Amino acid sequence: MFIKKALLVAIGDELVLGLKREDNVSWLSRELALRDYDVRALEVIRDEEEILIDLLNYWVGKVDLIVISGGLGPTHDDRTRAAVAKFLEVPLVRDDETYDCIIARHSLESKKYLEGCRDKQASIPLGSKAIFNPVGSALGFLVHAGKTEILALPGVPMEFKAMAQQYLSGLKKGASIRLVLCKIVGWPESELKEALGDLVKKFPNYIMFLPEPNVVTLAIKGSEELTSALLCEIKTILEDDVLPDDVSCLEEAIIALASDLNASLAFAESCTGGMVGESITRIPGASSVFAGSAVCYSNLAKKIILGVPEKVLDSFGAVSEECALSMASGAMRIFKADYAVSVTGIAGPSGGSPNKPVGTVCFAVSSARGDERAFTRHLNGDRETIRLWSKNIALEAIWRELKRLGQKR
Amino acid sequence: MFIKKALLVAIGDELVLGLKREDNVSWLSRELALRDYDVRALEVIRDEEEILIDLLNYWVGKVDLIVISGGLGPTHDDRTRAAVAKFLEVPLVRDDETYDCIIARHSLESKKYLEGCRDKQASIPLGSKAIFNPVGSALGFLVHAGKTEILALPGVPMEFKAMAQQYLSGLKKGASIRLVLCKIVGWPESELKEALGDLVKKFPNYIMFLPEPNVVTLAIKGSEELTSALLCEIKTILEDDVLPDDVSCLEEAIIALASDLNASLAFAESCTGGMVGESITRIPGASSVFAGSAVCYSNLAKKIILGVPEKVLDSFGAVSEECALSMASGAMRIFKADYAVSVTGIAGPSGGSPNKPVGTVCFAVSSARGDERAFTRHLNGDRETIRLWSKNIALEAIWRELKRLGQKR
Repeated sequence: MFIKKALLVAIGDELVLGLKREDNVSWLSRELALRDYDVRALEVIRDEEEILIDLLNYWVGKVDLIVISGGLGPTHDDRTRAAVAKFLEVPLVRDDETYDCIIARHSLESKKYLEGCRDKQASIPLGSKAIFNPVGSALGFLVHAGKTEILALPGVPMEFKAMAQQYLSGLKKGASIRLVLCKIVGWPESELKEALGDLVKKFPNYIMFLPEPNVVTLAIKGSEELTSALLCEIKTILEDDVLPDDVSCLEEAIIALASDLNASLAFAESCTGGMVGESITRIPGASSVFAGSAVCYSNLAKKIILGVPEKVLDSFGAVSEECALSMASGAMRIFKADYAVSVTGIAGPSGGSPNKPVGTVCFAVSSARGDERAFTRHLNGDRETIRLWSKNIALEAIWRELKRLGQKR
Repeated sequence: MFIKKALLVAIGDELVLGLKREDNVSWLSRELALRDYDVRALEVIRDEEEILIDLLNYWVGKVDLIVISGGLGPTHDDRTRAAVAKFLEVPLVRDDETYDCIIARHSLESKKYLEGCRDKQASIPLGSKAIFNPVGSALGFLVHAGKTEILALPGVPMEFKAMAQQYLSGLKKGASIRLVLCKIVGWPESELKEALGDLVKKFPNYIMFLPEPNVVTLAIKGSEELTSALLCEIKTILEDDVLPDDVSCLEEAIIALASDLNASLAFAESCTGGMVGESITRIPGASSVFAGSAVCYSNLAKKIILGVPEKVLDSFGAVSEECALSMASGAMRIFKADYAVSVTGIAGPSGGSPNKPVGTVCFAVSSARGDERAFTRHLNGDRETIRLWSKNIALEAIWRELKRLGQKR
């Protein structure tokens, strides 16, 4: 098994300043890991010629592949072409043929503008191969420096990904190393680590724990044989809490189950403010099962829209299992849905009391067949963390309800 | 003016693999930029001793400060302490005094566990200063290698930020360089660049454009004098489209304006699925102005809950200005709100037609005084992009409405 080494570089002052998220090279890193590359480092550097040249001096010869994202635009602060040419001690030359293919795609007005950028955007270091840009106007290029391949691509995410895909399609997906993700629902990370303690001890370098609110992703790396065996053991231990392999999140699992059951869903949300509805509608096709969500932030809205009785609000308060039950059945009724889940809680920072501190969140699930249940959780963290946990606990509740019904049939 | 140079390093296989977002060093980078540091690069590297030592060999002496995030936990794959000690050619020694302060805070059960980690977690390179951890159990440390300071902190975001804050509080906020953010609403990036063309030409290195859906952030860097002058010129040119300095997003601006007007807000959402409600409730204090949001994904829900007439749905369809108007007035009525905004559109990937292609989104704003207006936008991008643009256009609409009313009074 031959493992190639790679270094990925993202260029841009806005990235170094933390003003913009870097998504290109971190995405590519995962893709390369699936193709037997050992990515040594991701670097985010300023848009300065000298810094890139220093970096190339250090890494060329040490790795098989260097991918550079950004610095290929038409402006004076795009310095990747010049820096790579300087490092290689070659001049920049124009690849008019490839650039012509790119501008041919554009409108008359854009063409005029792009002609003006030709000197800059069509230039690549002598000896390099131009990479066609299917969605933008800057050329990329691929060049060899000894044993190291240097691939430079524009930083606009859509362009970077399209052009990196072209490169990836020339590599074969690693037969020797696999990276498998497995999502576990409803376990705190520490307890999960304990439950899987023996496995982790046996294969410490193969299992990574990536916790998110109420969902822990296990990233399992290794040979096909090893990852399959590990995955199988994990599923045996955690059976009911593993998301199916063919879905990437709780929302997808819920939509798949509800579609199978031909069931419609509704939500009633208070502290999550619309987050549960937002997350389920992120998935294309949600409309086949999702009727809607009543975001009732004020008590008045809970009464008028969901029909929560004044008495419930007065006796138990808006953050109570009684109110949650009434919200869920209200949502089911007004949306004419088969199942509804409700969330009402105190996300903070204010609004807590000794009896109901910040982080107290009540949930309920109702079904049109008359089943209903409610429960309360005490969550830690800041406002956003509490809201994210609440959302994922609500999704877990509906997921388990639908799973149970699916198994019954 | 003396500018110090810095290198920031985040350690973790899950970060290199793009399985987890790096947020520690990109946050710190911005904080250091405000304190006259020139951050040369952010590096994300594998949890391997050799890689960190190589990196220290390269950068020590070249920069004034190296901050390392992560690799300080109690497990075998936490290698930062050992790597730094090896680089400095000093042994690891235990700082029991600082560690005792940390475990004193914990419960009896945790104490037992933490005692077991003492050998690992209390160890720091000889000659370094232990950094107290106010929220977790791993010590950080600060050590000098010639002219370069090396600061190593745990990678758990809450711990990293708390301990980095301690370090930052010892630095004074840069009097010489400022980084000012200014948010412009409702401009496509390209048109904004044209409108500010002369300014950008005059000060190319001082203005960065950071586009988000429907909002472009201008990051202006320079002396206090220069940034103030630039900000003033920008506000003169763009007057009505600049968010006030004291708010960081549209949502905050809306809550501030609505509070001043003592007005309550409601939303009616279709394609955004709850996103508008979710984003406004992210801000603490939203409850003082936000009544709720009716997420009516199905046509049935639009009819039953918002009272959209069957006739409107039949004649114009759910994605029409007529339906948007009816949704907004319905939301105003059921939530008893003073203002309501509605969104209904086709986010794709399916559901488009020649007349109403994917990306067609209709909006309406209603006020209890009887004003109402609707408009349609044609948006580009994938499902999530169209939804994000829709959310921010809806927020822009309510922001402008509230601003207009505030000015009238």
